[in-house]
Amino acid sequence: MAASRHASRARRPVPGDAYGLELLDCYEGRGRYEVVERDDGYIDTGGDVLFYFGTFPAWPAHVQEALRAAHGRVLDIGCGAGRHALYCQENGLPVVGIDNSPLAVEVCRRRGVQDVRCMSITQLSRRLGVFDTILMLGNNFGLFGGYRRAKWLLRRFGGMTSDGAILIAETMDPYQTDNPDHLAYHELNRRRGRMSGQVRIRIRTRAVTTAWFDYLFVSRPEMEDIVAGTGWRVQRYLNSSGPGYVALLEKDG
Amino acid sequence: MAASRHASRARRPVPGDAYGLELLDCYEGRGRYEVVERDDGYIDTGGDVLFYFGTFPAWPAHVQEALRAAHGRVLDIGCGAGRHALYCQENGLPVVGIDNSPLAVEVCRRRGVQDVRCMSITQLSRRLGVFDTILMLGNNFGLFGGYRRAKWLLRRFGGMTSDGAILIAETMDPYQTDNPDHLAYHELNRRRGRMSGQVRIRIRTRAVTTAWFDYLFVSRPEMEDIVAGTGWRVQRYLNSSGPGYVALLEKDG
Repeated sequence: MAASRHASRARRPVPGDAYGLELLDCYEGRGRYEVVERDDGYIDTGGDVLFYFGTFPAWPAHVQEALRAAHGRVLDIGCGAGRHALYCQENGLPVVGIDNSPLAVEVCRRRGVQDVRCMSITQLSRRLGVFDTILMLGNNFGLFGGYRRAKWLLRRFGGMTSDGAILIAETMDPYQTDNPDHLAYHELNRRRGRMSGQVRIRIRTRAVTTAWFDYLFVSRPEMEDIVAGTGWRVQRYLNSSGPGYVALLEKDG
Repeated sequence: MAASRHASRARRPVPGDAYGLELLDCYEGRGRYEVVERDDGYIDTGGDVLFYFGTFPAWPAHVQEALRAAHGRVLDIGCGAGRHALYCQENGLPVVGIDNSPLAVEVCRRRGVQDVRCMSITQLSRRLGVFDTILMLGNNFGLFGGYRRAKWLLRRFGGMTSDGAILIAETMDPYQTDNPDHLAYHELNRRRGRMSGQVRIRIRTRAVTTAWFDYLFVSRPEMEDIVAGTGWRVQRYLNSSGPGYVALLEKDG
């Protein structure tokens, strides 16, 4: 592979449910690698889609420990292929999974998740009933998307949860990297008034792409800043040996 | 991962040697998956970059058989990480490797390829001396890029080779697929006056992209049509169990 020639205007990939498609492709044995394109042109393909289909023994210790804190009625936000929802079900916890990807919801149903709905995080309300545990695992604290939106949604989640509720939020400290592309992206983000770890990305599968969306990675101090004044507080952190960690949030007073 | 929000204009990835960078990343243990973007928006990440570093025992039987036909002074076009050049060297065949990727050339040098040059296929001339074998393995018949260019370069290769020379050209029959995206792309190509299997692609690694370039896949009849009148002829085909095959070309009279 070499040689460059005729320039051409690239056709856009087709807008659609590329995230669900990658899950369905993997579920049906057609493909395994997730392609994430960031809005600075950085393209990442480190992710094995099989990851979304893992079971408890394959999860890192801090995620296993986090799940042991799950109790009562569970809401799994961005449930993907349903791995955490299935774990809750198998352990006798009633769980509602939501994902905004129709094909992800389809994969969850095929895999036996009993209550899964196609819905985005901003559509959540008390209409789904009251929850004792909210799961935002698989870095899904990121679904908050940004600083203000996170605060707004955390407050809203207060009204959807019991007094003893916990919120199990997984993220990654974005500053624990020496990748120059990532460091330059943090700087770009700060220049445009965004949080360093607020990545604008889209998922691409075959000829299909998701819309661009914001996904938020935060350090522990940034986590605490976001949580402050929302009716939640950090009860404890569950740490990994790398940049990933779980924040276990409880109601604040 | 879910939720879509703020639209944004994507920044372009940085133009550069993304192909060589993926080889260097793999060589230095940083990454392993090749991302190929086609100009219809199709993105492919099936390729393990380790493939470029394979050795003889790992190669398919038809490629092994093709290499047994190599003799005399060898030119390896699009030598990548140097796997075929190293094989020739180890078997006592003097070999010149060329690749238009500076970082690929660097990887070849580090791996011990003795004569490797940064040069595109169109820069080849008799100044490199006369060759007895030309290698276009790893689907590098594709580097011909298109119908006319292939004919032009084949004629030119006639003047750079001995009377008993052979050209070992690997490609893939593009019609052996039932992937609807690929079939639609063939149709698009025919509508714009290109060969069905003439893919316009670019390689993306981290924030870097190659320029768009044409890479040609042909069926056996198309191979024979291209070779006709160029001073070469198909001596035999070495077939795989799939769409991939090698055409062994010899001088025509």
